[in-house]
Amino acid sequence: MRFIFTTLLLISGLLSAGAQTTDSLTLMPRPQTVKLQTGKFVFTGRFSIRISGPGSPKFIGAVNRFYLQMGKRTGVVFPQEYISGKEEPANAQLTISYEKSINPAIGMDESYHLNVSPEKIMLTAPTDIGAERGLQTLYQLVTPAGGGFYCPAVEVNDSPRLKWRGLMIDVARHFIPFEVLKRNVDAMAIVKMNVLHLHLSDDEGFRVESKVYPKLQENGSNGLFYTQDQLKELVNYAHDRGVIIVPEFDLPGHCSSILAAYPFLASYPANYKPAGRFNMDTIKNLSLGKIMLLINQVRTPTVDPTKETTYVFFDRFFKEMSGIFPDAYLHVGADENNGVAWKQNPDIAAFMKSKGMKNTDALQAYFVKRMYGIAQKYHKRLIGWEELFNPGLPQDAIVQKWKPAASTDTLVKTIIAHNNQVIVSAGYYLDMYFPAYIHYLTDPVPANLGTAGADKGILGGEAAMWSELVDGGNEEIRVWPRTAAIAERFWSAAGVRDADDMYRRLWAIDFELNDRAIDEYGSYIKILGRWVNDKGLDPAITVCNVYTQVKGYKRLMGNMLAPGGVHPTLTTPLVSIADAVHTDSETGWYFRHLVATYLDKHDATSLKQIKSQLQEWQSNKARFDALAGNSPYLQQIADLSDILSIAAGVALQAINNEGNKEEQLKQLQQLEKPNHEVQLAIGLSLEALVTGKLKPEPVAYPMF
Amino acid sequence: MRFIFTTLLLISGLLSAGAQTTDSLTLMPRPQTVKLQTGKFVFTGRFSIRISGPGSPKFIGAVNRFYLQMGKRTGVVFPQEYISGKEEPANAQLTISYEKSINPAIGMDESYHLNVSPEKIMLTAPTDIGAERGLQTLYQLVTPAGGGFYCPAVEVNDSPRLKWRGLMIDVARHFIPFEVLKRNVDAMAIVKMNVLHLHLSDDEGFRVESKVYPKLQENGSNGLFYTQDQLKELVNYAHDRGVIIVPEFDLPGHCSSILAAYPFLASYPANYKPAGRFNMDTIKNLSLGKIMLLINQVRTPTVDPTKETTYVFFDRFFKEMSGIFPDAYLHVGADENNGVAWKQNPDIAAFMKSKGMKNTDALQAYFVKRMYGIAQKYHKRLIGWEELFNPGLPQDAIVQKWKPAASTDTLVKTIIAHNNQVIVSAGYYLDMYFPAYIHYLTDPVPANLGTAGADKGILGGEAAMWSELVDGGNEEIRVWPRTAAIAERFWSAAGVRDADDMYRRLWAIDFELNDRAIDEYGSYIKILGRWVNDKGLDPAITVCNVYTQVKGYKRLMGNMLAPGGVHPTLTTPLVSIADAVHTDSETGWYFRHLVATYLDKHDATSLKQIKSQLQEWQSNKARFDALAGNSPYLQQIADLSDILSIAAGVALQAINNEGNKEEQLKQLQQLEKPNHEVQLAIGLSLEALVTGKLKPEPVAYPMF
Repeated sequence: MRFIFTTLLLISGLLSAGAQTTDSLTLMPRPQTVKLQTGKFVFTGRFSIRISGPGSPKFIGAVNRFYLQMGKRTGVVFPQEYISGKEEPANAQLTISYEKSINPAIGMDESYHLNVSPEKIMLTAPTDIGAERGLQTLYQLVTPAGGGFYCPAVEVNDSPRLKWRGLMIDVARHFIPFEVLKRNVDAMAIVKMNVLHLHLSDDEGFRVESKVYPKLQENGSNGLFYTQDQLKELVNYAHDRGVIIVPEFDLPGHCSSILAAYPFLASYPANYKPAGRFNMDTIKNLSLGKIMLLINQVRTPTVDPTKETTYVFFDRFFKEMSGIFPDAYLHVGADENNGVAWKQNPDIAAFMKSKGMKNTDALQAYFVKRMYGIAQKYHKRLIGWEELFNPGLPQDAIVQKWKPAASTDTLVKTIIAHNNQVIVSAGYYLDMYFPAYIHYLTDPVPANLGTAGADKGILGGEAAMWSELVDGGNEEIRVWPRTAAIAERFWSAAGVRDADDMYRRLWAIDFELNDRAIDEYGSYIKILGRWVNDKGLDPAITVCNVYTQVKGYKRLMGNMLAPGGVHPTLTTPLVSIADAVHTDSETGWYFRHLVATYLDKHDATSLKQIKSQLQEWQSNKARFDALAGNSPYLQQIADLSDILSIAAGVALQAINNEGNKEEQLKQLQQLEKPNHEVQLAIGLSLEALVTGKLKPEPVAYPMF
Repeated sequence: MRFIFTTLLLISGLLSAGAQTTDSLTLMPRPQTVKLQTGKFVFTGRFSIRISGPGSPKFIGAVNRFYLQMGKRTGVVFPQEYISGKEEPANAQLTISYEKSINPAIGMDESYHLNVSPEKIMLTAPTDIGAERGLQTLYQLVTPAGGGFYCPAVEVNDSPRLKWRGLMIDVARHFIPFEVLKRNVDAMAIVKMNVLHLHLSDDEGFRVESKVYPKLQENGSNGLFYTQDQLKELVNYAHDRGVIIVPEFDLPGHCSSILAAYPFLASYPANYKPAGRFNMDTIKNLSLGKIMLLINQVRTPTVDPTKETTYVFFDRFFKEMSGIFPDAYLHVGADENNGVAWKQNPDIAAFMKSKGMKNTDALQAYFVKRMYGIAQKYHKRLIGWEELFNPGLPQDAIVQKWKPAASTDTLVKTIIAHNNQVIVSAGYYLDMYFPAYIHYLTDPVPANLGTAGADKGILGGEAAMWSELVDGGNEEIRVWPRTAAIAERFWSAAGVRDADDMYRRLWAIDFELNDRAIDEYGSYIKILGRWVNDKGLDPAITVCNVYTQVKGYKRLMGNMLAPGGVHPTLTTPLVSIADAVHTDSETGWYFRHLVATYLDKHDATSLKQIKSQLQEWQSNKARFDALAGNSPYLQQIADLSDILSIAAGVALQAINNEGNKEEQLKQLQQLEKPNHEVQLAIGLSLEALVTGKLKPEPVAYPMF
């Protein structure tokens, strides 16, 4: 499973060795309290389960899944063929007691109490969903040792810090296949998240089958959308795992795909097509500043909010969608409407004048109010991105903060003072290619809010995966395991913020996620396998494991800014090294630890391991070049392989006290510069071998 | 992707080097005629597609999938965002012309003509499904070289030899997850198969949601079944890929799960449960002969064919199923009913007497006739296993031959003489753990049939995957790539039977199957990854790559016969080495080629490569043992690692002309004996290094 190499795995072993303490557990998210006891519970052929509770089919299913997966994990033949919740063994080794079965909902009781003793395991919870959360913790306690698998004796009391712990997946820009969504739900359940927010429509595509307005999917997509049957299945699948589904249809902007299907909804006549908002040919040579200006000044496809036919349409449409999405929320986007289309339409201007509206913000507020009315009619709480907020917004509408922190902390204060609740996505944008620790150290509660205000006003947070540069082939690489760190931020106590310990656990959880839920390793290997036409992958893996993407929007925007830069379209194959690699380098993390140990102790063991690793990197060039012979793409990125080899050589010189340190440092810094939209993830560690000092990693990265 | 190691990959390179000839292509199934022309078509940013035909949505979807996958394969940004079939480029590089859009059906026209020239590609076919088959061939022609990807200029004329080219998947014994079925359909489309036969019910489980008789899934399964929505989606998914779905509900025997739900259908009262037909505790110490006797003498769960209520039930049930499965076939099993339950029920005996039935065969024929009537009513052709046949069987019923060849060739003659058609599964049982060449060299047309009889009588063939020892975690490892070889047997000319050339192409197709369809490599790595708890896998892969399962029913039956043997139940975790490894060893095949070359040429290069490989195997023991420290399962199978190391050592001695050859041969033969239900796949090659002669591989294996 793990594609990092022998030298570093030795360290991995060292880091996890030693007597078991609370700190050696690999639970994620970290429970509120964990007390290790004496002894261990060993899994044998006597491991049986008794359920004491109202016996909901959803929970029976969860327990059977757990039991089958535990069997596969331990290889032990367990005694029960099927746990029906009715005829259960008297001497069950695991007893699960819960009081009631509930439908997942925000604010539900997800608490549980887990007690593992050498003889038996007791899991108790007020609700079946709480008990499901406890099963996930129990699974994470399973440890192999010598002849078998065990759980350390332990007492866990746990419940979430925040009510709303979400992941947003944009399925509009690139379509994300149905089975990938299901795998994401499995992963979310493992890290105790409870909201899957689907961004179902945007300029580039409309992704839901409508029977009332079938042109939405026919003309609004490239043939890739979810059927209603699939979405109903997804809702059930998610509910079975304690996750609700929040559908988003982005309005009144971000809607080219909708206008392509039903042009009468538009604020101005045009030949609408599902496509990005801007004509890339006209902007690709512009500066970033000019592009920003355009975003504010161009007449983008926008719904006409002045016509009653618009509301008749969306009333019928949201009625239909309410039949598919039973959970209590409806997200209408409301973001990035610059109002230009409205200003330029005389009829709309006349409407505004007749209603005494001074600007397009007032018209947006009017549109939001009408959407609120429709949501109410179908018993949904309205959600929108932060542009949804206006002083007239009803208090049960929810605002999702997305703009970078500094600019909108004040807004959050205002919103909360107005008694609206906030979901925080600012700081959790996965398309920024920030390493996990950046998100992990961002608290969803702005520092300047009083605790009282925070408790009441911050409903929770959401990781956000926008899909301009993500499709079914790499979505899981991009979302996981980073989102596990974010899940811990939302679930665990605010004081749990040791990034290094987070990473130690993250690599363990990543294995579990791949084993039980996602296909992240598989996606990675699939892209690389295609490069090398099924030849031995190792030299390519060696290179890819130590590169991560350039941070911020450099890939998305920078591409356009560069001469000849290519903006990704729906057919741009997302198969480059920047598409394939993780945003955190596991190899890089282990190597950094090794360097830190060596700089601290100057021990022979670390020195030997560092040299061995550097030699492996240095000599990888020959293997890579041999492999590249028949691989067009490896030839294109051979410079990255060269850079790794040269950089390792420089570090080897330095560690052998050869050459000029100043020159070496300069050379390394040169080699660390971005190339092919990626850069070396081991730069600081290599520099430390020259300077003798390991620089801390940046506390923040610029957006561009 | 490929997890075999460097030495052997060198050979892989050698085998595929040299000038391109028809024999260097890796098409599978091999088309009827292929003519290489001069030059090549290179894929560039100008690769666009024009469709000339009636524009069926199914075919538009297929072309867009092809285009996206070609983009990912080549990494080239192609010009079309979406191929709608309406607005197509005038100077398209690929023109696809077809005359009509058809629903997949047995006997449909699947022919196509493909012409690749350096300037353009022309694909023409009478039907859209023929054109889809042609796209698969085109994809398999794509070759990487130097700076990019190309297709050799070539002319292909192709059509299938047999009409029915199926894969049966038993989803009853172990449930096979929905997404695994979809991936199998993708793989079937790649190798041009057209029937997915689902064995949906058996003693162990009933796997379809019935709304008319909901207890079928509620009491007849362990909670694992397909919803009707899923099955409808699967049907559409398969139809889009030119594949029909044939549902099988096994009757009148093999039905414990049905009787558990509706006991009134049973031939005798009992406490029915979804479970295997025999109580394992009572038979596990019996000899094979005694077990066979039991199969013929024990009163197994059987439907009562004498009551009208039985037919009312199945009439309503098949009516419901006809709404889900629109294709023209209904499979009712009809196999392995020993009639004991009928003989022991006095009411049934009285019924037989009153109807003048001399034996239970006559009653079975009566039951089949009634089933035929119901199938007719819902416009389905009836299919059953060979026990369906009786002289009164209507001629449009189809018989599926499954018993091993010798015993039933005569039966096939009789059936064909009776003007019934036959689907052949004998020889294609994937649960026998036979290597691909055994199936490949078995022709579905029995040798003693005249060609005329064969053409008329042999409708086609089906690979059959029974799932006692297969679940979602290893189904793809067991079915693929072997089924690709069987697909070629059914599609290509009977004279295409060079097993060695089949293997050469099989490894290439396996890469394509994993890239575009299945998760066979991923399944393998997932099982091994769990063993080693996410540590470096290499030493475990090195061992697993050279072992294959014991052949025939030794695993399934032998398990029960061995003292303390365990018969697999639904909760037996299928995570052992015998569950994980492939039935063909790719490493073993390449090594055999290397040894053959060496014995032929006695060249220094081969000798060096052989030694290097043997040394790698020999020294792997130390790496394996280090890894096994914290891996309970690796400790259990350490003997297999030792055996590989010792055997490689013996071969090294021999190749160095050390030691006693006779002793070495004896020692190798000892080491080749089965252990943990697997055995060395490189035995004959190692022996050849001692004896100087490479024995041919067996032409057949015993069933037990």
